[in-house]
Amino acid sequence: MEALINTIKSFIRLSPEEEQLIPPLFSEIKLGTGEYLLEEGGICRVIAFVSEGLLRFYTNNDGEEKTGFFSSEHEFLSYYPSFLTQTVSDKYIQALEPTKLLVITYDQLQDFYARVQEGERFGRLAIEQVYLSAIKQLDSFYTDPPEKRYQQFLDSYPKLVQRIPQYYIASYVGIKPQSLSRIRNRLAKKH
Amino acid sequence: MEALINTIKSFIRLSPEEEQLIPPLFSEIKLGTGEYLLEEGGICRVIAFVSEGLLRFYTNNDGEEKTGFFSSEHEFLSYYPSFLTQTVSDKYIQALEPTKLLVITYDQLQDFYARVQEGERFGRLAIEQVYLSAIKQLDSFYTDPPEKRYQQFLDSYPKLVQRIPQYYIASYVGIKPQSLSRIRNRLAKKH
Repeated sequence: MEALINTIKSFIRLSPEEEQLIPPLFSEIKLGTGEYLLEEGGICRVIAFVSEGLLRFYTNNDGEEKTGFFSSEHEFLSYYPSFLTQTVSDKYIQALEPTKLLVITYDQLQDFYARVQEGERFGRLAIEQVYLSAIKQLDSFYTDPPEKRYQQFLDSYPKLVQRIPQYYIASYVGIKPQSLSRIRNRLAKKH
Repeated sequence: MEALINTIKSFIRLSPEEEQLIPPLFSEIKLGTGEYLLEEGGICRVIAFVSEGLLRFYTNNDGEEKTGFFSSEHEFLSYYPSFLTQTVSDKYIQALEPTKLLVITYDQLQDFYARVQEGERFGRLAIEQVYLSAIKQLDSFYTDPPEKRYQQFLDSYPKLVQRIPQYYIASYVGIKPQSLSRIRNRLAKKH
């Protein structure tokens, strides 16, 4: 809970009274490796703060998985299009390691916005950050060759490269695992 | 200016005093057909409200233009990754018709957030909307065949199909103009 409050305080000021409001708004969820926070056909009911662990967000296109992003310690994640409208989604959010989350529901978040002085400001700044990182990745996907997209992966997730299985990295870069091996070999020779 | 204030009021409450604050924060810009609000190498200095006209947002990839979105009357537009960080961009925002904009700079927007009671709430709700429409389009781009992407264009811009030249629609759908003609012919026969 301390990490969550410190993360919120990196965006906005919280009075001591407001800090007391926050713990009751969040619940703890534990996921084992391979378990899901969100599956196709479900509604993304929460925004989650990662206390511990690693998750990936992906789409299944007729059997081919496309990985959109990874989330690890002290980051927020959700699938906003489903969360914000509380409608059914075809996406997956899956734990890649034993994971502990602090989650807040849509109604509890509205409560946070109403009761915390700078709550709306937090919401604005947090979604700006989510939006910027989504656009950056998608720009890269549209315009960069695979080697540059892999470099963008390394820049975005410098601490996670050892923790994420190679085939998920390949799925994020949008190439086959064999092509990723070739790129990694080329990069290793350069350095 | 009335349309701008009414649009803001569709998101949040504004007191009569707050309504008075808004006009001095915005400046009017006029663009002729083909003129640019943003060009490669520039910084997106403003968020613009379209009073009148039509614009398109695009990227130039080695001579091949990829159209990201269109904006018309009573919509906000910007290139947020450049605007929010005030850094150089490689994108273009171009008027497709004689266009009138009301624009607000980054500093003036911070002023709006500080002086309007529900200003931060407006910022959060507006960027949530921008984010949702970007994700919807990109999802479609990743997973849908061209005919479905064209349908998504029609759903997103039902009133603009007569105003946007065919080659820009093709560039948005991600296909050649000839392929778009074939899709339109097939759809016409269905109806």
